Amino acid sequence: MSSLSIQDQAPQADCTIGIVGLGLIGGCLALDLKRLGYTVYGVARRQATVAAALEQGIVAQAGCDLALLSQAAVVFVCTPMAAIVPTVDQLAEHLSESTVVTDVGSVKGEVVAAATSLWPTFVGGHPMAGKAESGLAAAEVGLFYQRPYVVTPVEATRPAAVNQVVAIATQLGSQVYRTSPDIHDRAVAAISHLPVMVSASLLHACLSETDIQVKTLAQQLASSGFCDTSRVGGGNPDLGTMMAQYNRPALLQALKRYRGHLDSLIEQVEAEHWDELEKKLAIAQQERPKYL
Amino acid sequence: MSSLSIQDQAPQADCTIGIVGLGLIGGCLALDLKRLGYTVYGVARRQATVAAALEQGIVAQAGCDLALLSQAAVVFVCTPMAAIVPTVDQLAEHLSESTVVTDVGSVKGEVVAAATSLWPTFVGGHPMAGKAESGLAAAEVGLFYQRPYVVTPVEATRPAAVNQVVAIATQLGSQVYRTSPDIHDRAVAAISHLPVMVSASLLHACLSETDIQVKTLAQQLASSGFCDTSRVGGGNPDLGTMMAQYNRPALLQALKRYRGHLDSLIEQVEAEHWDELEKKLAIAQQERPKYL
Repeated sequence: MSSLSIQDQAPQADCTIGIVGLGLIGGCLALDLKRLGYTVYGVARRQATVAAALEQGIVAQAGCDLALLSQAAVVFVCTPMAAIVPTVDQLAEHLSESTVVTDVGSVKGEVVAAATSLWPTFVGGHPMAGKAESGLAAAEVGLFYQRPYVVTPVEATRPAAVNQVVAIATQLGSQVYRTSPDIHDRAVAAISHLPVMVSASLLHACLSETDIQVKTLAQQLASSGFCDTSRVGGGNPDLGTMMAQYNRPALLQALKRYRGHLDSLIEQVEAEHWDELEKKLAIAQQERPKYL
Repeated sequence: MSSLSIQDQAPQADCTIGIVGLGLIGGCLALDLKRLGYTVYGVARRQATVAAALEQGIVAQAGCDLALLSQAAVVFVCTPMAAIVPTVDQLAEHLSESTVVTDVGSVKGEVVAAATSLWPTFVGGHPMAGKAESGLAAAEVGLFYQRPYVVTPVEATRPAAVNQVVAIATQLGSQVYRTSPDIHDRAVAAISHLPVMVSASLLHACLSETDIQVKTLAQQLASSGFCDTSRVGGGNPDLGTMMAQYNRPALLQALKRYRGHLDSLIEQVEAEHWDELEKKLAIAQQERPKYL
């Protein structure tokens, strides 16, 4: 779990890197890796995406067939979560033994375990960057620059493979962290998946106001505080559901811990324990900068 | 509850307006009212504040004695919540019968009831503007421009007094809403006070993580989503406590409605009802723009 700077173990800059899934993340990776001097081959499910990637010059070669990546030194699987393990399974037929396979999924536990059993040089990864728009058309250079990139080896992961992924992430300018899939999943549950649920529940608490005068006035008066607190709860519902689905145990643990704190705060307001409430709010104010 | 534009009932621009409490809100009001042509007299508790207000030319006259305001046409009480009703009580000794008294407190129910019984031409008001800094030194022109200004008359409130406050708020460039203290308090509970509690509980859920590796990684990975969702929970603890104290019934109602939605969301994750969860998140996404 430390920031690294091992550039000497990166693959030769003239070697081929494969990218499966040319959405926002795959497209951004392709752009950055091309600038770093790698030859980038892309595989997409849809022919239209293949054509767009070639036309925009994002990749040197592209197609719908994973066989295209048979000579790649490293393959990034940038598909939606559900397709990661099946993709690794299909890739196994085409790759040479030395090829390192890595993914960019936002939950690591089950995926890393399953993919590692299918491909011994699989390395779990999670570049934590994004933007409001999705898809190849939104791809841009430098999305991962100064953003966290978590690499999650397990006991069976080959150290040389980990070093290769770390080296590429470092070349992208990311802040690289190494940790276990479990620690990663619990940390992102707390700071990424829990806020979505907390924030969505806030919106529903307001939406379910039955007095139309109160509800209308609330909509008229809501300002920056409400806007900020409700932002992630008003995000992409597919993504929120996917997070909950793949990170269910860690998210449930975080949700229950959260409910405990909410309950104690409700009790303080109910019992008019104002000194305790103020102490709780003072701790929140004092500790928040550690997360910024 | 509509936006108004009645400028003809504003007090004569050459008349005197009194301001009690020369903090951020009182200071900003003084600056704007001076620019509008009013003669502004200020009363502060501390002699140093009086001196600063005179030195900065924010007020024409200032002092620590409420008797200074005996000739004012309108008096704005800009003290902390706890001092509003005692101030109205003390003002009553000094004012002429026709003087309109209004306040700027962020919770209206009890204050409006008590102040109206002490002074028949009291009008509850709530200009919804602020900034991170507090105090007279942070005062600036135009703080209320295009911001909501809620005026909360009750049955006993004299219509002419309401019109005067509405007229001044309109001159400030505010979006003026008229509603009852109860509707105001329930609306601000939902969009202003509830988010503070929701957001502070999120911070505590993260702070109480006992695995130091998870907690440290969470602090390293937290980004804009966490930053936004936790912002109001990391705000001024005095202010948060004061809101809860003065708006306790409405806040408790909002907190319990919130907890109900959180519970149903936890149940959906627990039962793996992904279609229902996605539907809930889709509603949040779809309805949020109504609050922006």
